[in-house]
Amino acid sequence: MTETPISRFPVVPLADLPPDLRERFAEVADRSGFLPNVFAALAWRPDEARAFFALHDALMDKDTPGLSQADREVLVVATSAANGCLYCVVAHGALVRIRARDRYLADQVAVDWRKAPLSPRLRAVVEVGVLLAVDPVRVTEAQQHGLRGHGLTEDDVWDVGAIVALFALSNRLVHWAAVPPNPEFHLLGRVPRG
Amino acid sequence: MTETPISRFPVVPLADLPPDLRERFAEVADRSGFLPNVFAALAWRPDEARAFFALHDALMDKDTPGLSQADREVLVVATSAANGCLYCVVAHGALVRIRARDRYLADQVAVDWRKAPLSPRLRAVVEVGVLLAVDPVRVTEAQQHGLRGHGLTEDDVWDVGAIVALFALSNRLVHWAAVPPNPEFHLLGRVPRG
Amino acid sequence: MTETPISRFPVVPLADLPPDLRERFAEVADRSGFLPNVFAALAWRPDEARAFFALHDALMDKDTPGLSQADREVLVVATSAANGCLYCVVAHGALVRIRARDRYLADQVAVDWRKAPLSPRLRAVVEVGVLLAVDPVRVTEAQQHGLRGHGLTEDDVWDVGAIVALFALSNRLVHWAAVPPNPEFHLLGRVPRG
Amino acid sequence: MTETPISRFPVVPLADLPPDLRERFAEVADRSGFLPNVFAALAWRPDEARAFFALHDALMDKDTPGLSQADREVLVVATSAANGCLYCVVAHGALVRIRARDRYLADQVAVDWRKAPLSPRLRAVVEVGVLLAVDPVRVTEAQQHGLRGHGLTEDDVWDVGAIVALFALSNRLVHWAAVPPNPEFHLLGRVPRG
Amino acid sequence: MTETPISRFPVVPLADLPPDLRERFAEVADRSGFLPNVFAALAWRPDEARAFFALHDALMDKDTPGLSQADREVLVVATSAANGCLYCVVAHGALVRIRARDRYLADQVAVDWRKAPLSPRLRAVVEVGVLLAVDPVRVTEAQQHGLRGHGLTEDDVWDVGAIVALFALSNRLVHWAAVPPNPEFHLLGRVPRG
Amino acid sequence: MTETPISRFPVVPLADLPPDLRERFAEVADRSGFLPNVFAALAWRPDEARAFFALHDALMDKDTPGLSQADREVLVVATSAANGCLYCVVAHGALVRIRARDRYLADQVAVDWRKAPLSPRLRAVVEVGVLLAVDPVRVTEAQQHGLRGHGLTEDDVWDVGAIVALFALSNRLVHWAAVPPNPEFHLLGRVPRG
Repeated sequence: MTETPISRFPVVPLADLPPDLRERFAEVADRSGFLPNVFAALAWRPDEARAFFALHDALMDKDTPGLSQADREVLVVATSAANGCLYCVVAHGALVRIRARDRYLADQVAVDWRKAPLSPRLRAVVEVGVLLAVDPVRVTEAQQHGLRGHGLTEDDVWDVGAIVALFALSNRLVHWAAVPPNPEFHLLGRVPRG
Repeated sequence: MTETPISRFPVVPLADLPPDLRERFAEVADRSGFLPNVFAALAWRPDEARAFFALHDALMDKDTPGLSQADREVLVVATSAANGCLYCVVAHGALVRIRARDRYLADQVAVDWRKAPLSPRLRAVVEVGVLLAVDPVRVTEAQQHGLRGHGLTEDDVWDVGAIVALFALSNRLVHWAAVPPNPEFHLLGRVPRG
Repeated sequence: MTETPISRFPVVPLADLPPDLRERFAEVADRSGFLPNVFAALAWRPDEARAFFALHDALMDKDTPGLSQADREVLVVATSAANGCLYCVVAHGALVRIRARDRYLADQVAVDWRKAPLSPRLRAVVEVGVLLAVDPVRVTEAQQHGLRGHGLTEDDVWDVGAIVALFALSNRLVHWAAVPPNPEFHLLGRVPRG
Repeated sequence: MTETPISRFPVVPLADLPPDLRERFAEVADRSGFLPNVFAALAWRPDEARAFFALHDALMDKDTPGLSQADREVLVVATSAANGCLYCVVAHGALVRIRARDRYLADQVAVDWRKAPLSPRLRAVVEVGVLLAVDPVRVTEAQQHGLRGHGLTEDDVWDVGAIVALFALSNRLVHWAAVPPNPEFHLLGRVPRG
Repeated sequence: MTETPISRFPVVPLADLPPDLRERFAEVADRSGFLPNVFAALAWRPDEARAFFALHDALMDKDTPGLSQADREVLVVATSAANGCLYCVVAHGALVRIRARDRYLADQVAVDWRKAPLSPRLRAVVEVGVLLAVDPVRVTEAQQHGLRGHGLTEDDVWDVGAIVALFALSNRLVHWAAVPPNPEFHLLGRVPRG
Repeated sequence: MTETPISRFPVVPLADLPPDLRERFAEVADRSGFLPNVFAALAWRPDEARAFFALHDALMDKDTPGLSQADREVLVVATSAANGCLYCVVAHGALVRIRARDRYLADQVAVDWRKAPLSPRLRAVVEVGVLLAVDPVRVTEAQQHGLRGHGLTEDDVWDVGAIVALFALSNRLVHWAAVPPNPEFHLLGRVPRG
């Protein structure tokens, strides 16, 4: 595993990054204990990396009554699994374990979200989200209205679609560059932190 | 057609937009003669709009020997058609007509790219691009090497994947918000400009 | 485009056609201003050509309250798009523009009929028609009854199925012979006739 | 079985048919010992019935070194099975048994043509034919050339495509009208005629 | 047909089989008049053969008001057809003809179970069974409850799933070893026994 | 999670099981520290349980140069993931971690076996195995010969097909009864045993 390259494309040494990215990466590495590979893989295209992180932060660092941070991560795991994206399933699976404080939910959602123990609200979110991920032309306005019936605000509904769209992009970039998840992600949230 | 709303989500009047977006929008409307609906539809989320435009400009406003601006638009039309995204097929179809100076190519690529009169290089780009769009897990490293064999640089190859990824996002946002193409796009590039 | 052959199979010069076909072709060319390529491509098999035109005329040159000529063309565009048939999408798209007096409908139906501005009646026709085109074993009697509920007569219901069936044939002949649409079709009905 | 109606649409009594159809039907019933249901089901639309029979005769009553009458029936069974068309599988399966003088081939082709004992030539015909039936946009010119390499003439190659196209139509008409096979077809060719 | 081998793997002569299998095989051959090829093909792995026959007998030699022996065979034909398994379609088709005393039902179910003349109960069984066969993740608890509403006991419902599961295994073993049906099966139950 | 029932069907208390199953279950629970839920879920049908375990032991408790025990578990994870079977992915994923002494491989295979770090031999096994799992009619004899070229014996090749077939059964039983994995499996092999 250790020899798997981080990307099929060039990986810029941290020291050579533009200052804003270097600072952000240092901060992330400091907080997580390691730098997620997707950061390293995107960095050779600073403008695209900045835009990607901006989209990510706008949609994922948000916690609303209708769509908690944990819910957003569950949606990412379900749609990334539908796209066979190992990096996103493993990295965001770790975040599901941490944010939902549930050691099993990420594995359940990744393999068979239909039988996973989701609330009716979150099940509706995941159902329409996976459809938007794999067959977007079939999403109906009625399904979006259904989400409102589960208590999502108009902003929450937009976020459902925008998160699925962002990871439609992310899954494909990761497949294209063949970015592997950091080994640390596989275990995060599975055992009590000592 | 005129009564089709521009989005299922709120559309902010131009006057109420943040100054940077207002300026950009005015510039685009000035150059094109109209404001593409996707601008208006994204504007209620300024941070997301800015990031989207940044990604777009980084990948689409580029012209390299291995992947011309026209080629990039062809790739967008082919993958957006695979996703049934009317806005992107019609708007970028207009750009194909203009940039490739070909009145028929966009229609050909949208319906059946396999029989479209593409160079072997562009055919290879579209083939792997459509696969990345619809079944990303099946893209192989060998296909990417094949693109190098057609003269694409490493940067061009990244761009192929990143463009497909960006429109995987874009197509889904447009489906989610049900953004219709501006009527003007249907005719652009079909008749000689007077 | 001009060098794309009209067919992968022999194309008989007009002068060498049997008199009845020659007369029909001359008439069509006279009325349209050009001879649609599908005529030229079928003509080397006069019996098949005659039978094809007979089926076409019986089903398409008909205008009923439940299924107007424009509706029939919309159905052809939707199912031909599902089959990726460029000739039929472009040629019958032109007829949609002319017969429905709508410059945008053909493009909308070809890319995403689900969001196209169709009446509930025509939407039901297109929905069952596309299913018959792509997965005929799944068509149910209940769906046919649904068409009656929208005001189609028994004859109209037969016509829906027979039109889809005819273009299942037509799309495949056109793919097999690789017949391109005449350039004229791309623009027909897009601009007011001077 | 005896109570299954012959069609969901009106069935015209023989006596009320136009003379040419009445004569043809009588002849067929005389030769076969029964009138195939598809005749009865199509007859309420005499023009369409005549055109259908003309296409059928032009393509199926033909025996060439590259594509024998038995081969044509095998192609019909394979593509009709792909479309789940009971009538065509059973009726043309009987014809396969009779024309190929093989009591098992029709069942083999209907369920799994890939393992059926077909000559390399007929296997190539069936392979491209089934592809044209189920996913026509993917048929390549190279596959057609491959048929030439197996000894098919240009006329034979056209016939392969045209037969598949005709039964794409036929399968859909039969599904639409829910025409059941005559009971006689199930047994024809399975036991030596006394 | 006579030269098609019984398996791609070794076939042990009857005389060399372990006594229990030899006895069972002799008994079957005696009762049926021939030894079904699947017995001969499995016998080189005696433990697997014994387990397979044990599963088969536990699930198929059973006749309950909610799921008769004939019903079980219909379910096998429908799901085996979905898997393109010639052996199972033909061998169990013969059993359908014999046990349901219907000469046409097996052919109807194999090609298009949706239009086959099934009772609402058996139709519901086949519908959920085929779904479990081809897309097991989509089976819902509600569908299982629906079977109870048609009069199936809890044991019957288990049997539906277990039969489909057993033939998911059986179909794949048969494909893997390319086991052809015995010629006798094609005709069994089609003509009155003299 | 603790409240998720072990099965949708009756679960027999250990004390009420037939002696042979009770003994086997006790032994397994003793060795593993817990009783895998699939044992408990199958036990209400003792004959089927015995046959299932016999098949399992014959195929999985085997270690050959061409197909090690770890390889067999990898094949189970890949095909079970294709079927969305949570129990099998998680339980056999634990066995992959233990038997292949690799903490990451199971997750990699479950989400995207194509990019997993498999030997060419194991990759060929998984490729044909997944095809047999999801589209058995398309498996070719050439693919089986390919496995021989990678050093598998005839017995190994049979085992590949038989393992896939067994888990085609197992995955469907588990879906039908909605058997959840024991919580212990999620963590097994992820951390060094103290």
